[in-house]
Amino acid sequence: MSFELAEGVAVLERTPRVLREMLDGLPSVWTDADEGPDTWSPYVIIGHLIHGERADWIPRARIILAQGPDRRFTPFDRFAQFRESEGKSLGELLDELARLRADSLATLAEWRLTDAQLALEGEHPAFGRVTLRQLLSCWVAHDLGHIAQIGRVMAKRYRDDVGPWRAYLPVMDR
Amino acid sequence: MSFELAEGVAVLERTPRVLREMLDGLPSVWTDADEGPDTWSPYVIIGHLIHGERADWIPRARIILAQGPDRRFTPFDRFAQFRESEGKSLGELLDELARLRADSLATLAEWRLTDAQLALEGEHPAFGRVTLRQLLSCWVAHDLGHIAQIGRVMAKRYRDDVGPWRAYLPVMDR
Repeated sequence: MSFELAEGVAVLERTPRVLREMLDGLPSVWTDADEGPDTWSPYVIIGHLIHGERADWIPRARIILAQGPDRRFTPFDRFAQFRESEGKSLGELLDELARLRADSLATLAEWRLTDAQLALEGEHPAFGRVTLRQLLSCWVAHDLGHIAQIGRVMAKRYRDDVGPWRAYLPVMDR
Repeated sequence: MSFELAEGVAVLERTPRVLREMLDGLPSVWTDADEGPDTWSPYVIIGHLIHGERADWIPRARIILAQGPDRRFTPFDRFAQFRESEGKSLGELLDELARLRADSLATLAEWRLTDAQLALEGEHPAFGRVTLRQLLSCWVAHDLGHIAQIGRVMAKRYRDDVGPWRAYLPVMDR
């Protein structure tokens, strides 16, 4: 096991800035690119991350920390962003993510979590019992996975353009 | 085919800033993490990108544009960074990449490439004939692939920590 709270936070606080550098001001051929039907563009992914700040990480951590009689998490809506991002520019979404993430991390810092608290459990609707440590490490890995996804989605725009170099670019076939 | 020079440049010019936001100042548990024997850490990847600026993209473009009798590229050393990064901090490497990339893009801009020039060919040591358009689109995709790789390598540090959530994180098993 590798998770340490301060190291995880060091990644979480960077994510909005990383995504801004990757995407803000880019032509929409990049930010609306996807990998085919039912796959997500960078624009869609930013909306998904925003919904996570509102509905997933901190709200679920609160349920665990409260240790009430019902510790079951509300199921996460993986499609909320198609509704919630409507009419918003990518720049607005990036600002919103930065604001929400800063709030989330301020809350997390105020909690001054102990190892004992990190071991507390909640109930995931599909997996059953999960710990706060697992939830927080998942938050970090989830950010990184979506950063990787955005790089991959964008790279694939040039799948044919690179000609024979495709053989040296494993990202094209992931 | 999707490649348009201005759109590609919009990605290339962002890469040093994206990598700085992802990595600069992070604990070395992140920047030295890898996926196992003979895989690359973020630190190693930055050195590889630096070597690409020096030895790959612009030098190969020059060979193509010159259209001399020998248009064969010098083989690229995929391990140069293990020598060239020695003794350098990650912060130094990120600065070096930013400087070299700015120089590369200044050269590219000065060339004011035409469609006819983008169709000119060089000789890749393994693939044979490749066009300047393929080389430049590969440069962009190569950046994006390594950004995706860094996200993936970092996410995998928490492969076990996330517990049952691993089933929802495809990045963990790529």
